[in-house]
Amino acid sequence: MDWQEIVSRALSREVRAVSRLISIVEDRRAGFEDVYAAIYPRTGRAHVIGITGPPGSGKSTLVDKIAAEYRSRGKTVGIVAVDPTSPFTGGALLGDRLRMQRHSLDNGVFIRSMGTRGHLGGLSRATSGVVDVLDAAGYDYVVIETVGVGQSEVEIASLADTVALVQVPGLGDDIQVIKAGVMEIGDVFVVNKKDRPGVERVVAEIRMSLDLAGKYSGHHGPATAMAAATATATATAAIAANAWHPPILQTMAESGEGVAEVCEACDAHMRCLVTDNALVERRFRRARSETMKIASDLIWRGLADDARTLGAAEGLAWKVARREIDPYAAGRDLRELVVS
Amino acid sequence: MDWQEIVSRALSREVRAVSRLISIVEDRRAGFEDVYAAIYPRTGRAHVIGITGPPGSGKSTLVDKIAAEYRSRGKTVGIVAVDPTSPFTGGALLGDRLRMQRHSLDNGVFIRSMGTRGHLGGLSRATSGVVDVLDAAGYDYVVIETVGVGQSEVEIASLADTVALVQVPGLGDDIQVIKAGVMEIGDVFVVNKKDRPGVERVVAEIRMSLDLAGKYSGHHGPATAMAAATATATATAAIAANAWHPPILQTMAESGEGVAEVCEACDAHMRCLVTDNALVERRFRRARSETMKIASDLIWRGLADDARTLGAAEGLAWKVARREIDPYAAGRDLRELVVS
Repeated sequence: MDWQEIVSRALSREVRAVSRLISIVEDRRAGFEDVYAAIYPRTGRAHVIGITGPPGSGKSTLVDKIAAEYRSRGKTVGIVAVDPTSPFTGGALLGDRLRMQRHSLDNGVFIRSMGTRGHLGGLSRATSGVVDVLDAAGYDYVVIETVGVGQSEVEIASLADTVALVQVPGLGDDIQVIKAGVMEIGDVFVVNKKDRPGVERVVAEIRMSLDLAGKYSGHHGPATAMAAATATATATAAIAANAWHPPILQTMAESGEGVAEVCEACDAHMRCLVTDNALVERRFRRARSETMKIASDLIWRGLADDARTLGAAEGLAWKVARREIDPYAAGRDLRELVVS
Repeated sequence: MDWQEIVSRALSREVRAVSRLISIVEDRRAGFEDVYAAIYPRTGRAHVIGITGPPGSGKSTLVDKIAAEYRSRGKTVGIVAVDPTSPFTGGALLGDRLRMQRHSLDNGVFIRSMGTRGHLGGLSRATSGVVDVLDAAGYDYVVIETVGVGQSEVEIASLADTVALVQVPGLGDDIQVIKAGVMEIGDVFVVNKKDRPGVERVVAEIRMSLDLAGKYSGHHGPATAMAAATATATATAAIAANAWHPPILQTMAESGEGVAEVCEACDAHMRCLVTDNALVERRFRRARSETMKIASDLIWRGLADDARTLGAAEGLAWKVARREIDPYAAGRDLRELVVS
């Protein structure tokens, strides 16, 4: 099969073709830019949902249940599970197989796990490519699942239309602290394993952080999808963007309790984005960040491949190694050589 | 205290000054490049040891015991603990305090934990800066401790003179697989928690991988520091570089068993690097990689700060968002604009 054939089959959501297309994009095989150019016009239709949280918060189970919920509503779901702590493709594939069994015989759910790649800024761009393939293939929802490890949360926020932050009671005080910067990217908050002691405290902490950020809706009862729906109604009535008030939902992913509400909250958030004209802005920001990252990466690769700059880099590096100049001085010199 | 004063005190290994200097370099505060230029000529004297392994392999305990062992030999040790899974500085600081208690009243051990930073390629360069500060401050050994999560192993290999890979029995088959690329960077292999069942299998797997890579010394008895010493003797007798045969050592970090042998293996490796003239080459490679990373980062920041390129990026991004062009085409256009 040539790549045109693979693209054509993938765009009809043929699972094996989708899988092969993802590998081409993920591994940046020769000609992947042609493939990308071919599928890109078909993207932009999926609702991209990012789900992130600390290890042990039950994200995978939650994502599986969300997929099942959307399937029960007749929607198709592509899942990209990014595990920055696993460099082991083999393990990821094994995990895929185990998870796929739950959705076996169902062509409407596609799961792909990714480890991180060893190149600069690799996580987000490879993930972005996989999201685009699933989007082009026609999945109604693309869910990105990733462990919350600092940078990955920021990256997921730049990729997703809706970001759901998962928290869980009882991870201990030092882990449970939610950073201000992370709070800001949450569109939906999920407190999973709600039967655990301490759930009220986690909810209260999130609410307090949202209050501080001026984002909480003011519904102080137990948050439900109603809060989300109300927030949407408020938002549509409100003046402009940023009118979304992130709901705080409680779930038991294992039993599926509260999962439907999470799906409804994500949908409500998307409706709000559309009504507010904020979706266009979000997607523009994603496009800008990707364009700049790709340009930066091309410049970096040019640096590493070009004989002249490589020669200059070597000369400077010997001076650095001999402690004649420091690396920053050398970096400045090298930059001048490339961009001027 | 002005920064010259801080630098001067840090270079005399005054703990609080070292700590402040690290913060300046780590956070890239205004003027940090001057600070860097001031300390850099004093670097290059420490033996930089990278210790990496999967979560739960007992790295922290091992590192603490290695520090204690070197201290008992009258050497000073700076420790940089990089946890890419923890974005929580607070947690890291708490961990530092707990660990410092074990070395309290001892001015000869310095511990600094770092989370990851949210910028491109941030992990390795910030780490590099911290290593340089500790090196300049006069610590005999600088130990970088990091969870093995794909990219971090490659990064640690570019920073350290000696890389010790820690494995542990019983983490399960899917995790225990040692990737070929990761094997290549190991100078010393440590199988920790050697009382656990399955230790022979882990040792055998490492040996097999080393055999495949043509790196194993051929000592098939239980590997000890003797193997390392023999390997060194062999190495000095051998023709040139790459004559080091990584020993496989078994430890019980909790009790300290085998830790002295790990220290001796690291020292033997350093002697081998010096004898082979390989140290100069390793440090040149580190200097080259840093110079290029800094140049690349400066170009990226220039991209993000320059009004003209930012304007161009916005125009291109709108086209991308409207699906008129794909992000790679936009990235190529932007690159042309910047470097030509």
